[in-house]
Amino acid sequence: MKALVFDGKKLALAAVPAPRLREGEALIKVHLAGICSTDIEIMRGYLSFRGIPGHEFVGTVVSAPAKRFVGKRVVGEINVPCGRCATCKAGLGKHCASRGVLGISGRSGAFAEYLALPVKNLHVVPASLSDEEAAFTELVAAACEIPEQIEIRREDRVLVLGDGRLAAMVAQVLLPRTARLAVLGRNSRKLVALRKLGIRTHGPGSAKTLLRSQDLVIECTGSHLGLPLAVKLVKPRGCVVLKSTFHGNLEWNPAPLVVDEITVVGSRCGPFEPALSLLGKGTVRVLPFLSAVYPLERWETAFRAVRRAGAFKVLIRMD
Amino acid sequence: MKALVFDGKKLALAAVPAPRLREGEALIKVHLAGICSTDIEIMRGYLSFRGIPGHEFVGTVVSAPAKRFVGKRVVGEINVPCGRCATCKAGLGKHCASRGVLGISGRSGAFAEYLALPVKNLHVVPASLSDEEAAFTELVAAACEIPEQIEIRREDRVLVLGDGRLAAMVAQVLLPRTARLAVLGRNSRKLVALRKLGIRTHGPGSAKTLLRSQDLVIECTGSHLGLPLAVKLVKPRGCVVLKSTFHGNLEWNPAPLVVDEITVVGSRCGPFEPALSLLGKGTVRVLPFLSAVYPLERWETAFRAVRRAGAFKVLIRMD
Repeated sequence: MKALVFDGKKLALAAVPAPRLREGEALIKVHLAGICSTDIEIMRGYLSFRGIPGHEFVGTVVSAPAKRFVGKRVVGEINVPCGRCATCKAGLGKHCASRGVLGISGRSGAFAEYLALPVKNLHVVPASLSDEEAAFTELVAAACEIPEQIEIRREDRVLVLGDGRLAAMVAQVLLPRTARLAVLGRNSRKLVALRKLGIRTHGPGSAKTLLRSQDLVIECTGSHLGLPLAVKLVKPRGCVVLKSTFHGNLEWNPAPLVVDEITVVGSRCGPFEPALSLLGKGTVRVLPFLSAVYPLERWETAFRAVRRAGAFKVLIRMD
Repeated sequence: MKALVFDGKKLALAAVPAPRLREGEALIKVHLAGICSTDIEIMRGYLSFRGIPGHEFVGTVVSAPAKRFVGKRVVGEINVPCGRCATCKAGLGKHCASRGVLGISGRSGAFAEYLALPVKNLHVVPASLSDEEAAFTELVAAACEIPEQIEIRREDRVLVLGDGRLAAMVAQVLLPRTARLAVLGRNSRKLVALRKLGIRTHGPGSAKTLLRSQDLVIECTGSHLGLPLAVKLVKPRGCVVLKSTFHGNLEWNPAPLVVDEITVVGSRCGPFEPALSLLGKGTVRVLPFLSAVYPLERWETAFRAVRRAGAFKVLIRMD
């Protein structure tokens, strides 16, 4: 099959063997795969991943031990836990130390014609959702993780830091939960797209007027500058939810966390069912945040497009 | 009066005017003042403080607007809020942006014959406590802040990271609350002192066997190495309480916070009444952690002594 393969230096389109299925796994023909910031960080060396990246996808099940899945259109959770360790037995499989993570760690990903995932990771996509919409499920689920982790009160001042794809999903997921949500971004076109959905926005010049003003800051910048800025924007005793992972180090003095008694909550993958539900109800709209869809042969253009200022989600059509 | 003054380069014994009292303030004759890691960091440039450092003290009230305090032996909370801003009105005066902090920020401190503090900051010391014991109150209060901020369950695995003065207080404050507390330190003499109080200890060689094992890690190292190590020791979804402030930057990738969904809670000054109560009941024992008391004239020896490996608290007698 055709796939994009990262050898530690560069990404290339290559012919590779189709995935071998392990027990309990389904074979999925990939329709669309989304390019995520994590993929870009992987190209920069994050987690030293080698192989086929890509973890956001929608596809059709070709074969599966559970026959009811065969022929179904699915999206899939990306963590594949061992199922046997203490972490798994405590119900925290997505944190299993020996897990594979689709296209991120120890497991071939979605920039391929076919991928393998355990049936238990799969969620059937409602017919009302297009492939393009369904390809955002993993990203929306990451936003849905936040209210699973922390309590958000209606009166809280909530600031989403960043104006990219994840920020747009987080803002929409949290908007119904709080009366005082805004996004602080720097790209005026992106901020316009957010305002069209009724989301209040601040441009970069506003950061200095927002210092120490927020009960909750959701850091979605994808940058090493995000955490230090988030800590400046939150009130003493406030909370920062940290979403960005990146390659390389942050140089920073964490003393303000101590002095202002700030809480930082790391937040990663989230639940797929609420994400599919919010997509189905139209509470979260994703098509305004789809910049382009490229066929696999134009993968280089796709990766260039996603790096462009003003770009939201770029998808690659695998079939 | 005599005082230790930091001019931004070095600390020196000098003759300075006695403090001028503002409204609501008491004048306190200092008996003992403790040297804290924060004082050492101030000498290294932390917070660009200039003036008289020192924030741990016990003394006697010489004059006060509330006569009932005059002649009383007191300890004092170190934050002096404005009382008028939104933070103060929300009951978070210790986080007031324009507060003074005794000997740390905008306010002369305790390495002096006299200091000034608002009467509302003062707590009368029970007669059962010696001056030496009372001088630990601020440090014990900092430990008492932790259970105010987070819930600790009896079955939680709790690791205190560090074996210094603060670690010794934190371990004693938390010991009655959890069945599975231990200290991870590196100085064998310090660890012996902790074991004498029935506290389980690990030497530095144990760190690698404790990775990803703790529900809660209390970071009390005073070092920029503390936070990254604490994050390695805590379980996924676990909590790190960050206590150390230091001068200079930490170079670090915070991705593990996100990937393992770890919570970091900054924790600073705490409540004095529970601290005095724990000292009074003997739940927290401090004299095993008193290394030396020097007269003011020998302040240079005192500051050298506190930097020595194996040193716990060093006090300076001001009268």
